[in-house]
Amino acid sequence: MTTETRAAAARRAISYYEKAGIVLTPAEKEAIEVADFGLNDLEHTGLQIVVYVNTERVCAKEMVLFPGQACPEHKHVGAPGKEETFRCRYGQVHLDVEGKTVILHPGDQYTIYPDTLHWFRAGEDGAVISEFSTRSTDETDVFTDARIVR
Amino acid sequence: MTTETRAAAARRAISYYEKAGIVLTPAEKEAIEVADFGLNDLEHTGLQIVVYVNTERVCAKEMVLFPGQACPEHKHVGAPGKEETFRCRYGQVHLDVEGKTVILHPGDQYTIYPDTLHWFRAGEDGAVISEFSTRSTDETDVFTDARIVR
Repeated sequence: MTTETRAAAARRAISYYEKAGIVLTPAEKEAIEVADFGLNDLEHTGLQIVVYVNTERVCAKEMVLFPGQACPEHKHVGAPGKEETFRCRYGQVHLDVEGKTVILHPGDQYTIYPDTLHWFRAGEDGAVISEFSTRSTDETDVFTDARIVR
Repeated sequence: MTTETRAAAARRAISYYEKAGIVLTPAEKEAIEVADFGLNDLEHTGLQIVVYVNTERVCAKEMVLFPGQACPEHKHVGAPGKEETFRCRYGQVHLDVEGKTVILHPGDQYTIYPDTLHWFRAGEDGAVISEFSTRSTDETDVFTDARIVR
């Protein structure tokens, strides 16, 4: 992923945070993480992330998925692994949890416990999703697609 | 606090969540907690709360303070006690942490670690505050004012 691609995705993500009515500081806008999961196909596989806080015990993030974009299947392992609640703030989220699909509209939420395979994608308007969780550590995410590097 | 007072405060809180652009489900609106901390003086001491999630490990809430309303001084004890991050979504928050005042505007946040005395009040427009924390248990809150019952 080029620096230019990354910068364009971050700018585009800001417009989605605005649609959701979420106020970010200038520093947060500068620090938006654009994850392509090492697949270099951001149009289909990617996630834009603002991390609010990530201490030893608690993590909170605000994530953007563009229309058609998906976060690929993975689970959080560990002792114990990460627990996370997704709350849809804008758009629509198609969340697949161990083969079962849940549709989240604004105000809807779903809690995913450790060691549970899941993936999610946005509907046609994209999506903004708040995540409330235990500590985030990318290195304890196990992706089904072995090509993925996080 | 009468049932009527409580219902009026809950309705008023909904208008603040709307000002902050926060979408709540009908069930969440019905379940808004109005806390007067047993002082029966909601105008000055009180807090309106929507609990999104509160598991063994993670809690997330959305709180409203009306103009002039304060949440009285307390700390979270335990082994370990509750850790919480406040993020201002609307209005202004005057947060006092062990005697030091921090002013939070929309997009600003502050993390309070266990066993740390704190209290907070809204500015003249009221405030909406997201809280990201470890598990919430009212019984492990120790208030400075011994009259307070939570």
